This record gives sequence, structure tokens and C-alpha cells, in this order.
Amino acid sequence: MMTEPISLGQAQALDASDPFAETRGEFELPQGIIYLDGNSLGPLQAATRRRVEKTLTHQWGEGLIRSWNTHDWIDMPAKVGAKLARLIGAEPGTVVVCDSISVNLFKLIAVAVGKRPGRKIVLSEKGNFPTDLYVARGLVDMLGDGYELRTVEASALADAIGENVAVVLLTEVNYRTAHRHDMAEVTRLAHAAGALTIWDLAHSAGAFPVDVAACNADFAVGCGYKYLNGGPGAPAFVYVAPRHLDGLKQPIAGWLGHAAPFAFDDDYSPAASIDAMRTGTPPILSLAALDASLDIFLRVDMAALRRKADQLFDVFVSNVEAFCPQLRLLSPREPERRGTQASFAFHEGYAAMQALIARGIIGDFRSPDIMRFGFAPLYLSHVDVWNAAQALRDILDTGSWDNPAYKVLAKVV
Amino acid sequence: MMTEPISLGQAQALDASDPFAETRGEFELPQGIIYLDGNSLGPLQAATRRRVEKTLTHQWGEGLIRSWNTHDWIDMPAKVGAKLARLIGAEPGTVVVCDSISVNLFKLIAVAVGKRPGRKIVLSEKGNFPTDLYVARGLVDMLGDGYELRTVEASALADAIGENVAVVLLTEVNYRTAHRHDMAEVTRLAHAAGALTIWDLAHSAGAFPVDVAACNADFAVGCGYKYLNGGPGAPAFVYVAPRHLDGLKQPIAGWLGHAAPFAFDDDYSPAASIDAMRTGTPPILSLAALDASLDIFLRVDMAALRRKADQLFDVFVSNVEAFCPQLRLLSPREPERRGTQASFAFHEGYAAMQALIARGIIGDFRSPDIMRFGFAPLYLSHVDVWNAAQALRDILDTGSWDNPAYKVLAKVV
Repeated sequence: MMTEPISLGQAQALDASDPFAETRGEFELPQGIIYLDGNSLGPLQAATRRRVEKTLTHQWGEGLIRSWNTHDWIDMPAKVGAKLARLIGAEPGTVVVCDSISVNLFKLIAVAVGKRPGRKIVLSEKGNFPTDLYVARGLVDMLGDGYELRTVEASALADAIGENVAVVLLTEVNYRTAHRHDMAEVTRLAHAAGALTIWDLAHSAGAFPVDVAACNADFAVGCGYKYLNGGPGAPAFVYVAPRHLDGLKQPIAGWLGHAAPFAFDDDYSPAASIDAMRTGTPPILSLAALDASLDIFLRVDMAALRRKADQLFDVFVSNVEAFCPQLRLLSPREPERRGTQASFAFHEGYAAMQALIARGIIGDFRSPDIMRFGFAPLYLSHVDVWNAAQALRDILDTGSWDNPAYKVLAKVV
Repeated sequence: MMTEPISLGQAQALDASDPFAETRGEFELPQGIIYLDGNSLGPLQAATRRRVEKTLTHQWGEGLIRSWNTHDWIDMPAKVGAKLARLIGAEPGTVVVCDSISVNLFKLIAVAVGKRPGRKIVLSEKGNFPTDLYVARGLVDMLGDGYELRTVEASALADAIGENVAVVLLTEVNYRTAHRHDMAEVTRLAHAAGALTIWDLAHSAGAFPVDVAACNADFAVGCGYKYLNGGPGAPAFVYVAPRHLDGLKQPIAGWLGHAAPFAFDDDYSPAASIDAMRTGTPPILSLAALDASLDIFLRVDMAALRRKADQLFDVFVSNVEAFCPQLRLLSPREPERRGTQASFAFHEGYAAMQALIARGIIGDFRSPDIMRFGFAPLYLSHVDVWNAAQALRDILDTGSWDNPAYKVLAKVV
């Protein structure tokens, strides 16, 4: 149900009591930009810039090979993982940072089906983020032997979790609509049917309080470069519940997943810890950026952060719905049923988004017609998003989106 | 056969006519360090530092999400791959930069065995770099169905390439001894037996002229952070011969290997190019460092670089053999049979290396008793390595290695 548009005065009042008014200063956002795309690539923090510069000149340049020990590069995947564990409600020693979401999903699906011999189905949702589906497909094709990726509509998931399902693979928050699954309930259903769960937290970690342990999740992955602001292509993280750590062995068995990598044995013996999920040498520059970017999350109250995200959502959505009747809200209105972005369908959404970007208001577009707006409380004010909504209204009222320059599809959208 | 030790005067004369006397200035090496470990982690160049700083502040900080298009982040894996292709004698469009060596080997072995149905053996060498063996083992264990990793001594390889071998997986230059396989000849033998080849160029690319096309190699991988100076944990590269690109499909099928990643289709359709080897989002900061680090190699004559590496080897080895009889050379004396490092066995090699490092001369150690010294012509002078040999002689003559502080094994060796 639509609500009255929140006024500028109300937005200013919300800013006046904003517990995150000070954190914006930690971000190096360009002047004149309202950045509503932190759900795709989070912005740079000054602390992150300084950390990467120091890693470059002091650790790599001066320390050279010695920094693997003196700056403990070798254990950074676990140390950064420990910060993430706090953020997603994971038990100590269950999270490590390595590779990409895609590569980690491959490992996890292989582990999960290995734990459910005889069950042949990897169950997921139509319209899940494509890489999740592609990786699952690549794996089941490789395994052969009757293994199958089965995708159903979200509404049919509960009924599809049957006795031949080995693992349920879902993204908690849908990247197109922000629809949020009930992680605890789906996990309960999966376990009741004897299946395991893998949760993709790409649009969850850093956006709102996550509690994988309380949800009884078996496995999870997540993204370093969206809400966590870890930098373009930041490494991903992977979670394995304590009950699955014993004897953990994944198929992409590289040297840094070995129990004793520097013994240089010919035979593989996996680490008796979450390190068994590691494969190759970690990308230290990218990992340093992610490490520094996480510190801010360990200082803030994630429940308060989520509350502000919902207020930002309400300021934006109430104005867009009141003044831009051409747009249709795709995101759930109930906060508990969604992530923190707002998605609108508009037949000329791509052009309208380019028109907004030309005014310094950056969101993004997903085919076929979806305009996405991310609300990151650490660096956005309520007046920012009120202004963004007015700009969108003006673009629609004046039809200024109808410009050939705004209809040239970029390579990356 | 041992040679007369090359004198300081001779080393100075070699430096006087050194075609690489100027390139050292491009590296930000700390004062007082003689760095003989570029075979493990290459040093920082000023151009690399500037490039990462610019990527941080200008591309990420200012450009934000727009830089995927405006700075063409999305095609960096292929663009950096094109630089590497020139360096390893690869055809245009056959090299891409992504993931780690380990992850790429997993993909390539899967592709190779898929092209040789009915053949069950992945053949490699005992003492190959461990991650190569671990990954192969992880893959054959996953495939089951009679697939097997078979390892033999290097001397037995030719005889072991039989009709059940799907793929021969070798590192061209052995990391312990610098022994170099004859890539062309082993590939010829493999092809004659109906098998394919995967070459790990970790200790080749950037060290000497490589020509995968002339050798008729099927597949290759290589390391960005050793001789190529791409930074700690730089992403790896992968080569696929043109004849294998058609219909190329690898099992870790992530979104950036898709023909149209931003169409966000539910179904996977691999790119009709080397991009099919890609999986997840590239680590841009690490990739930028590698990109910048490669430019110097495109300006130098690799044959001349190799000649200097051999002169550095001779200066060092002739002095160590003359004055350090406790050490035994493990590396081949004939340049065509080795890479560019020198390895010596010494029962107290770990302590002796720590004593050298304490003097600012940095090499490394590999279990059980191997001291490794890398000779990178871009930043080492002949007098540098002459001085390194004298320091080693002094440490052995005085027994100063025999110090408890030098016997504490570090976590990373």
C-alpha cells in the first residue's frame, strides 16, 4: 500500500537525528554525486585507500617476500574471515576469504552433494543470480550420473524440496527485486527433507543483521565488493557450519588448502579447519582493501543500520510512488520480506537511469526494465535520497530521459 | 663441470656493458637489499605503484561503478592476457588473466580429459609443484570412473606417455632445481601418443623467451607474481591453443565466462573465445598491478634478458662452487636445460639463508635442504650477485649461520 510522500522537512528531521551522520566523512565520494549503487560496487573509504597504499609501498615494496611472515599475509584469508564471521553471525573459525563467489559455490555444491550420496538434485530458484545457476549447471554436467540442477519459481520451492534433493541453493535477497527468502524457514524445510542448504549472501552481508548460525545454515558465500565496500572484484567469503568442518574436503584442492602447504608434499592432505576451502595464493592487494573496508562494520549497530536503510527506502519510495506513476515498485513493502534496495519497473528504465546518472545520481539497471536503487546508510542522508527522488520525478515529468544518448546500451549494465 | 670463479673486476666489466643497467631505476627496491627472490615474489615498480594508486583514487574512488565501462575493467582480463600472449609466443586471443594457477589448472585438466574420452590417466612428474598435483588429484577423485593421477620420475616420463594417457601435466621449470623440460619434445611425444599437454609456466614467463605456439602446446597456465612482478597473489594467466578454442567449455562456469554476461540469462552459454575460461568478477586492484608490471617486458629483448640471467648465474655459481664446497649445485649447468635460478643443497640451508637475509641478501629455502637464488636481470647487477656470493662464503667460513635465531622455522618458507 502506497504511503504519503515524505517531505523535505521530514527528511531533514530524520537527518538531524541520524546515528550515522558522521560515517559519511570516512568515504571518499566525489563531490556532487548521490551514490545509490553500493549494492553493486561500494565506494572507497579513506582507511581503505591508506591501507592499500601501505600494503603497496611498505609491505610489498619494502618488505618484499618477507611480508608473507612479517605482515602475516598467509593468514589474511582467515583473519578477514573472522571479521566477516562477526558480521554474519557465524561461529569462530567458520569463515575464510578466497576466490570469487562462483568458484566458492563450485566447491560448496561439490561438498554438499558429496554429503548426500544417492540424492541427485541441486534445487534452486528461477531467476536466481545467474552465476549461481551457471556454476551449479557446470558442476552437475561434470558429475553426470543423473545429477541435475532443478529450478522452480520461488513460490514452488517448499513443495520441491523432496527426498531426492541433495542441496537447496538460494540467494537470500534477489538481485532484481530485493525479495528476501526466510533463511531459517527454508533451511528448516530442507533439513526436514534431509537436504542441505547453501546461501548466497551477496545482497545481505553488510546490508542488515545476518545470523547464519541461528538460521542453522549449512554453507554460505558472500561478496566483498557490494555492501562491504571491499573494492572492485574484492575476494569472496565462504562459510561452513561447524558440523561440516570435520573431514572437510573440496575438489579444487590447491596448495593453500593443504594442512601443511610449506611441507611441499606430493600428496594432498586438507587443512583440518575452514582453511580447507582455500585453493591458491590470495590476492593480497585486493584482500587488504577488503580487510580495511570491514572495520567500519565492526563499530556500528547493524540493527540501527538496517533501520536507517528502511527509512531511506521509505523516503525514496514514497516520493517516487507519489510523483512517478509510470514506475511500478517491484520490491516488497514489508521490510522483513526484502533486502535494502528498491527496484522499479519502467519500460524506459535504462534511459531514465542514464538521465539520472548524467545528473550525478548513480543507480543501475537490470534487464529487461528494472531500475535499481541501493540505500547504504553509512554514506547516504535522507535528504540525498529525497533529492534523488525529485530528480527522477523531474526527468519523468519533462521527458528528458527521451534522448538518444541515453539509449546506447553500455557493455556493462 | 666447475669453472674458475668470476672476479669482481670481471663482474664490473659485465656491468659496464649491461644492456639492462637502466631498468633497475624503475624498481622501488629498498636500500641495502640484494633481492634474489624474484622467482617467488617480484618487486614493486614505480609504474605499478602509480597505477594502483590511480586505480584506487581515480577509477574506484571517483569513477565508482561507472569504471566498469569508462575504464574498461570488464575487458582487463583479455587486455592483460594480450600482453602476456606476446610474452609467451601465444597467438592473439588465446590468453586471459583470471583466478589462480590452481583454479585454472582444475578447469584445464577437466577440459583436456573431456577431449580424450576413454583415456583415464593424468600423467605428471613426482616432485612437480604440489598444487599442480593436488588439483589434479582433486579432479580425478571427483570424476571417479577410473580416472587416475599418475606421477613418475622425470626420466620415466617419455616411457609413461601411453595410450591411456589423456593429458600430460608438467611445470616447464622445476621450482626446486630449475631443471627445464623440453616443451617441444614432450609435447611431440604426447601428441604422438594421442595425448594433450598442459604446461605450467610459473618459472618460465618473464624469465626467458617462451614460445607456446612453436612448441605446439595445447594448454598452459602461469603466475603473475614471480618473474612478472605483478604483486603478491597477482592473478594467474591461462592459455588455450586456437585449435581448442572452438566450443571451449570449462566446468567452473561463472557469469563472466558467459557469451553475454549482462543479459542475465538463466542458462549458461559459454563465450566463443578465450573468455570462456573466466569465472567470476576480476580482482581489479590486483589486476591493475599486474597490467602495469608487464609493460617493461614488452620493451625489452627477452633473449638478451636471458643472456644476462645466465651471466648472473655464472658469476654467482662460479664463486659459490669455488669458495663454498659445503654446497652442492642442484641446477643444471647447461642453460638450455634450466630456468634462471640456482639451487644448492646444504644440510643447514635454512639457517644459512636466514643469515644471508639478516645481511640484506634475500633468497629463499625449500625443504628439505635447498637454498634458492633467483637472478632477475631487470634489477640485479653482476656485482650484486658477486657480493651475494662473497657474503655466503663469509657466512660459511665463519660459521655465523650456526645461530639459534636462524633455526626458528617461519610459517612461510
